[in-house]
Amino acid sequence: MEVTIREIGVIRSPFKASDSIPIQSSMSDAQGEAEILPEYVEGLHSLDGFSHIILLYWFHRTKAVKMRVTPYLDTKEHGLFATRAPSRPNPIGFSVVRLLRIEGNRLIFTGADMLDSTPLLDIKPFVPRFDNREDATSGWLASSLESKPEVHHSDDRFHE
Amino acid sequence: MEVTIREIGVIRSPFKASDSIPIQSSMSDAQGEAEILPEYVEGLHSLDGFSHIILLYWFHRTKAVKMRVTPYLDTKEHGLFATRAPSRPNPIGFSVVRLLRIEGNRLIFTGADMLDSTPLLDIKPFVPRFDNREDATSGWLASSLESKPEVHHSDDRFHE
Repeated sequence: MEVTIREIGVIRSPFKASDSIPIQSSMSDAQGEAEILPEYVEGLHSLDGFSHIILLYWFHRTKAVKMRVTPYLDTKEHGLFATRAPSRPNPIGFSVVRLLRIEGNRLIFTGADMLDSTPLLDIKPFVPRFDNREDATSGWLASSLESKPEVHHSDDRFHE
Repeated sequence: MEVTIREIGVIRSPFKASDSIPIQSSMSDAQGEAEILPEYVEGLHSLDGFSHIILLYWFHRTKAVKMRVTPYLDTKEHGLFATRAPSRPNPIGFSVVRLLRIEGNRLIFTGADMLDSTPLLDIKPFVPRFDNREDATSGWLASSLESKPEVHHSDDRFHE
């Protein structure tokens, strides 16, 4: 199977370089905007009732794909699919962000953790009963997260 | 932007037709398997420490894309992006499933809510601290979910 995907819009964020990006949206209070192409604006109807939305997007500045990576949160190698590293066979990113408001074709949100100009692929409503897993465990990340209560990259602008 | 994506494997499930599929993985106790192509198996290393994984896949049997849809859980129309309907501009599906075990190139899981033979695009570890949103609200779905405590399609095999 080989299929073509197209952007439905673009994400604006304060992050111009990858070393300034928060590790995850849950650790970011940065504001971002998703600008939707005109032909898709009607599809936003009644999205504003949801407090959180799922953004799927294209990691557009990735490196060579390796099956073993040493993620930021560890010093040991892990399988690529056991990490959230952006350089993947299909570099599709996934963030749950807090929707502040919708203004025409613009979705204003907090929790930005993607580069500025990231191509947007899809928007889905986040539904707690569908998407939360209270009993989930964190694999190799458990000890990393415990030892780094404030997870951030090289600066201290982002914390929970 | 226009990019090409390829399957990294295929998902096996008990569901051969769309009218028998559970609404969401959180409402399914059906078992499924993701079979990974040989070149990606090394990327599964240390994934088995996670209780839940995120599967991204391609809705391969979709209909015409409409910006307003009447979802199964309501009688009113909503914007496409305020629903989880499979027929989308980029028909990328998203399920959080419970990983039972990994056997070679096969990931055995429960929570199957996709058709048999669905092309798999990506696997990510589910990390509670990254992915849960305890305080999220459910928009138009709130009242639908309340009035349908056991959400299922046309049969009663699936319930929470």
